[in-house]
Amino acid sequence: MPQRPYLLDCDTGVDDALALFHLLSDPEVDLVGVSTVSGNTSAAQAAENTLRLLALAGRSDVPVAVGEHHFRMVDFDGGVPHIHGDNGIGGIELPSSAVGPSDESGAELIARLAREHRGELHLIAIGPLTNLALALEIEPELPSLIGALTIMGGAALAPGNSTPVAEANIACDPHAAELVFAADWNITMVGLDVTMKHLVEAPDRAALLSAPGRIAPVLGEMLGIYFDFYVSVFGRPCSALHDPLAVAIATGEVVPTLAPVVRVRVDATDGPGRGQTVCDMRGLYAGYPAQNGARVRVVLEVDQPYAPLLMKRLLSFD
Amino acid sequence: MPQRPYLLDCDTGVDDALALFHLLSDPEVDLVGVSTVSGNTSAAQAAENTLRLLALAGRSDVPVAVGEHHFRMVDFDGGVPHIHGDNGIGGIELPSSAVGPSDESGAELIARLAREHRGELHLIAIGPLTNLALALEIEPELPSLIGALTIMGGAALAPGNSTPVAEANIACDPHAAELVFAADWNITMVGLDVTMKHLVEAPDRAALLSAPGRIAPVLGEMLGIYFDFYVSVFGRPCSALHDPLAVAIATGEVVPTLAPVVRVRVDATDGPGRGQTVCDMRGLYAGYPAQNGARVRVVLEVDQPYAPLLMKRLLSFD
Repeated sequence: MPQRPYLLDCDTGVDDALALFHLLSDPEVDLVGVSTVSGNTSAAQAAENTLRLLALAGRSDVPVAVGEHHFRMVDFDGGVPHIHGDNGIGGIELPSSAVGPSDESGAELIARLAREHRGELHLIAIGPLTNLALALEIEPELPSLIGALTIMGGAALAPGNSTPVAEANIACDPHAAELVFAADWNITMVGLDVTMKHLVEAPDRAALLSAPGRIAPVLGEMLGIYFDFYVSVFGRPCSALHDPLAVAIATGEVVPTLAPVVRVRVDATDGPGRGQTVCDMRGLYAGYPAQNGARVRVVLEVDQPYAPLLMKRLLSFD
Repeated sequence: MPQRPYLLDCDTGVDDALALFHLLSDPEVDLVGVSTVSGNTSAAQAAENTLRLLALAGRSDVPVAVGEHHFRMVDFDGGVPHIHGDNGIGGIELPSSAVGPSDESGAELIARLAREHRGELHLIAIGPLTNLALALEIEPELPSLIGALTIMGGAALAPGNSTPVAEANIACDPHAAELVFAADWNITMVGLDVTMKHLVEAPDRAALLSAPGRIAPVLGEMLGIYFDFYVSVFGRPCSALHDPLAVAIATGEVVPTLAPVVRVRVDATDGPGRGQTVCDMRGLYAGYPAQNGARVRVVLEVDQPYAPLLMKRLLSFD
């Protein structure tokens, strides 16, 4: 089966962990590297988490590069331990990995792998866009080198989660996002419009916890604090599948059925819209006619409920 | 039948004209004054249009005050003749009124009528909020003097119309809107979330044009250029009922069925979010639980299709 090269840029993170395992479960995916960035937790902790998760999956061959600790214009403030736990992965202690992070920075890894897999690399960014913005600076040809770019982030018509209008990944580093959304490439934006519609629920978590393999119960444990947080959002324990859904759309397993290509600007002001992806959705009333200069495919609906597919994949691990 | 006092602040305007006639058709409404502001057309032209429309309806007893020509921080730039015609009312020439505008400014009229109808006046603002912001300055007690405030403006979850996220009334004068939304009063916000769902269509316009009365055919004529503009939005000739719907909600004839009370901030930056009503709709996923400090009732759904009611009213004039 032909494999395609993927690079995951992440801030691991509970849902990042699920996204990572979704990627590892796909036989058509060649995960050539992971770069980490501060967001849910620090870039260094995210790399440690990723290395341990890869070790758990027997995939310590995948290089992990520690990316940017601070955002472009503001310092990283410690992440969101009330959502993702003190260590980013729900407070679960995993065995150490035998290998450490690579010597490269996150941005360097992105730039090198883009050159090595010229025109083929699918870049999936599921954290703040700090590494991508830096990679654009150290390799200005990046947009023409990569094959595709999928971003979990932003919100077009849905409310934000970090602020009334800003999604957390963009809100962390709006200046980086501004550069990334203004660069000369096409972006598939998997934002809150679609991710908030795809949830794992209490019975899903129970199924993970009682599964016979080694990995599924760990992920079930990890979801504990995350489920608790989402009570404040949905009124019940559950979890939106932000990052994993972005991965499933990137690999083509989940197919967008409503995804207008529109112009997007990122609000990097200090006003109430800071961190918003300002998407031009005014075509809504006429079936989204083509827009001049539009580069961002904003996913609004997909072809299937994603949670069952993810559960099947997570339960398939030994 | 007991009447309640209403003051209409408007930038007349094709849909402002429809809103005015909706108000005049309601036997429970005592229209005690109209203040005008620049927006669709200049404040002076809007007053002239209003005076002529009132004369047509035999209601030249209603005082009309010319309000602010320029916005708080930027000059009025001539309005939107491609949407509302060169004179604001679709290019239709109406007979002159025998009376002229009042000697007061728009803001003075608002403040005076609020004092005269202490606790009773229902203020309906369907243009830029420049007059209201000024009225708050000349009469700081305004919030406690008025009975209710309904604003046509803004967008919570729907796209904007002036920009991707800004509705035209707020976009014209975001600094005024910022003051008005921050003042100590409750606001019913009738924004694009609901107004874009209530349309008059080509058969409605045909019915107006062929009606036996004096007024309906004039309104049918007036809708010509407005219908033409909306082809670019909806793909067919029609018209969103922005201002009239706000009036119908203010009078209670149309009842909101989904209208969370939320915190709203107006974006008055120069960034891509300028003119946006940043509404905190994050309660969406849990049925909009109560928010501390929330003062704005954002109308999302109402109890009936509004166009049939408006048509009945417009066709009821002699």
